[in-house]
Amino acid sequence: MASSEVDIKTRSRALELIRSHFKKLVEESEKGHKLQLVFPKRTLSNTIYDQKAKMLLLGPDVQYRSFTDINEAKKFMQTLLMASIIYNTLRNNEYPTIRDLFYRGKHSISYTSVDGKTISENSWDEQRESDSVIRDLEVLLNILREDLLILSKEKGKVVGNLVIRSGNDVIDLSKMGHGAYAIEPTPDLIEFIDVDAEYVLVVEKDAVFQQLHRYGFWRKNKVVLVTSAGQPDRATRRFVRRLSEEYKLPVYVLCDSDPYGFYIYSVFKVGSITLSYESERLSTPTAKFIGVTLTDIFGTEIFKDVLKKHGVKEALEEVTKGISKLGSKQPYLTPEERKNFVIKAKLRDVERAVELVGYRVAEACLESPEYKSKIKRKEGASGYPWFLTPEWVRELCIFFYTTSKLEIEAITGKGLKFLADEYIPRKIKSGDWIE
Amino acid sequence: MASSEVDIKTRSRALELIRSHFKKLVEESEKGHKLQLVFPKRTLSNTIYDQKAKMLLLGPDVQYRSFTDINEAKKFMQTLLMASIIYNTLRNNEYPTIRDLFYRGKHSISYTSVDGKTISENSWDEQRESDSVIRDLEVLLNILREDLLILSKEKGKVVGNLVIRSGNDVIDLSKMGHGAYAIEPTPDLIEFIDVDAEYVLVVEKDAVFQQLHRYGFWRKNKVVLVTSAGQPDRATRRFVRRLSEEYKLPVYVLCDSDPYGFYIYSVFKVGSITLSYESERLSTPTAKFIGVTLTDIFGTEIFKDVLKKHGVKEALEEVTKGISKLGSKQPYLTPEERKNFVIKAKLRDVERAVELVGYRVAEACLESPEYKSKIKRKEGASGYPWFLTPEWVRELCIFFYTTSKLEIEAITGKGLKFLADEYIPRKIKSGDWIE
Repeated sequence: MASSEVDIKTRSRALELIRSHFKKLVEESEKGHKLQLVFPKRTLSNTIYDQKAKMLLLGPDVQYRSFTDINEAKKFMQTLLMASIIYNTLRNNEYPTIRDLFYRGKHSISYTSVDGKTISENSWDEQRESDSVIRDLEVLLNILREDLLILSKEKGKVVGNLVIRSGNDVIDLSKMGHGAYAIEPTPDLIEFIDVDAEYVLVVEKDAVFQQLHRYGFWRKNKVVLVTSAGQPDRATRRFVRRLSEEYKLPVYVLCDSDPYGFYIYSVFKVGSITLSYESERLSTPTAKFIGVTLTDIFGTEIFKDVLKKHGVKEALEEVTKGISKLGSKQPYLTPEERKNFVIKAKLRDVERAVELVGYRVAEACLESPEYKSKIKRKEGASGYPWFLTPEWVRELCIFFYTTSKLEIEAITGKGLKFLADEYIPRKIKSGDWIE
Repeated sequence: MASSEVDIKTRSRALELIRSHFKKLVEESEKGHKLQLVFPKRTLSNTIYDQKAKMLLLGPDVQYRSFTDINEAKKFMQTLLMASIIYNTLRNNEYPTIRDLFYRGKHSISYTSVDGKTISENSWDEQRESDSVIRDLEVLLNILREDLLILSKEKGKVVGNLVIRSGNDVIDLSKMGHGAYAIEPTPDLIEFIDVDAEYVLVVEKDAVFQQLHRYGFWRKNKVVLVTSAGQPDRATRRFVRRLSEEYKLPVYVLCDSDPYGFYIYSVFKVGSITLSYESERLSTPTAKFIGVTLTDIFGTEIFKDVLKKHGVKEALEEVTKGISKLGSKQPYLTPEERKNFVIKAKLRDVERAVELVGYRVAEACLESPEYKSKIKRKEGASGYPWFLTPEWVRELCIFFYTTSKLEIEAITGKGLKFLADEYIPRKIKSGDWIE
């Protein structure tokens, strides 16, 4: 079966990379040198938030994996096993997933120990193990898995004034009817032919994407409309990043007003903590959170009440400076709408929020004694640096104070016209977002 | 913003339907007649598996909902409230989701009771309630929600030799590059312009869809390739049904070999139990389960061992006839592959399997005393009629006997070539499927 031009090139590039890398290892071995792999450490302690680049990156620590070290020998073997499996899938014109790479490498190795016993050991038992080896290889070879033609399930969709070449086809993403274009698992192989847009709007929820699409929002506003359908996958992140980088398009992210929505935004912006080595290519540092914010719901007046609470001001000044100097605004919802639309936050929402801005902020602002006692166990949490800005801390303060959250659908509940013709355009025009 | 031609027509048809239906109610009221809605009952006891049509349908029972009956007045009001909200979204050129219909109708009604107290009651508190009212309206008006332009999140994707018109666009689904076409939420508004395919292959897992797509499977075999990305949504089901009905294309479903995979197949084929009133339009009675079957993994020889177990034969004959007369076949996996690929079934897999074929079969075939004692609480389960065929019962017997399951990815683990060039074509050619 004929592969596309671009797949053939990608394949031969990846083959050459693996071949040359491991040839060096063979040469070292022939010279009688120590068999050893060296690559950046992928540990949490070596994951650093780069304030300037505004993304999570791997730090300077290096990992050695040596064949002759009893503690590292198995991992060394696993890494070589996985490299050879991937090498073969590339040669055989295949497109594996991480799940079937796990299956392909899963087997038992029997050997005779020094005291004559036959011992059987599995290459790996859990996908967790083989996935970790794939990540090691990405770091070792300095290549993303997508460029090794490893595929994965994809949820991201897009429509807009955008013409792309993917595989052997030229596709006009403004001609998708009521449907949409499902982004491919290897977004670096997409060639952008024509992009005619003012900005990119990323919508967390597929159903809201459907509504805006059907309403003609992207056509009227010249927008590339994207949905991640929940937690964004790698391909959607890379696709958005490329539009931001190559066409300097502003990127706005529209999520639910709750800590999960805030986190989805932050995955687009700074990257995910477990995959920090990929942020350099997957994250979009200029992404802006357009809403829904807690101040959209309650306005900023309520924050004065929070600040009046005993000890809050001191706690906040400790965490972030400039918290009192933030601008003010009116809410987008009436008290009646708030009453009908707002949902009470659950404990897990509160706990997630503690992870974002730390225990200190939560403890100071929370009204509910029940939640207050239950989050005690998160006492050590200091928050993610990129959420410790005055704007975000104010949002989370109001969240803790009101223990309220809101779905985007509640905004649509005011009418799709309100969302499409008022809320989004007004927020963009007036710069009412959080960075 | 300009809607598509087809949306404008759909809108005016839906408006007319609602108007004429409720006008009758007004007329009845003006004549002094009892204000009452009458429609088919959507209860489990009125959900019937139609052996001939091979789908779940609503039975003959009818539901009365009367304004003056104290037990029904609230539901009556909710139904009228929802009808008026939907009517307004249609007039306002909107595309609501069931979630924002919930928000739109959520409010408190205050009234003075006979003894002078002010009482406040909510229209509804949970989406469960408003969803149920939407379902009532679908049955009452004999129309699917999609035809009321109610949208929802969609996961289904498709590629193949298929040209469609959706909205104002003509889209060639064989020109999607490495990506795919994301099916719209209103698949009845799609116009099929050209269909050049031998059959439809529905793949449960998006990642496997990506692999087959990239490998060129659909092009070589002239296939419309669809993925439901897990449990199928309504649009994917309707899309597949239309291809089966309007083009007489055979439909094959490829799922994991476990009770959840079997159930996904059955949702495509006979419909889902809670939405049985929609089966008539959403289900594909001719759909075939192409795999992965337990007999693909173990062959049929193992079933003889099951039948040798004390009391199994009697138990099975009671449930289904012809169980001993089934054909035989060799497994697709070697013993070594089985050892590496097969996963031990969890309790919830076993429990799901009990729901499919009933407690009697499970109790007779299960080897594990632990699972046997734990499923005791499902003793009453008699199974779904459409799974009580010799072929399915044999599958589930082997499942209980071995408590084994297998993912499609394990088949890809043998090589994508094996899945694409051997397994699927061979199974289709030799008629090795279950209906």
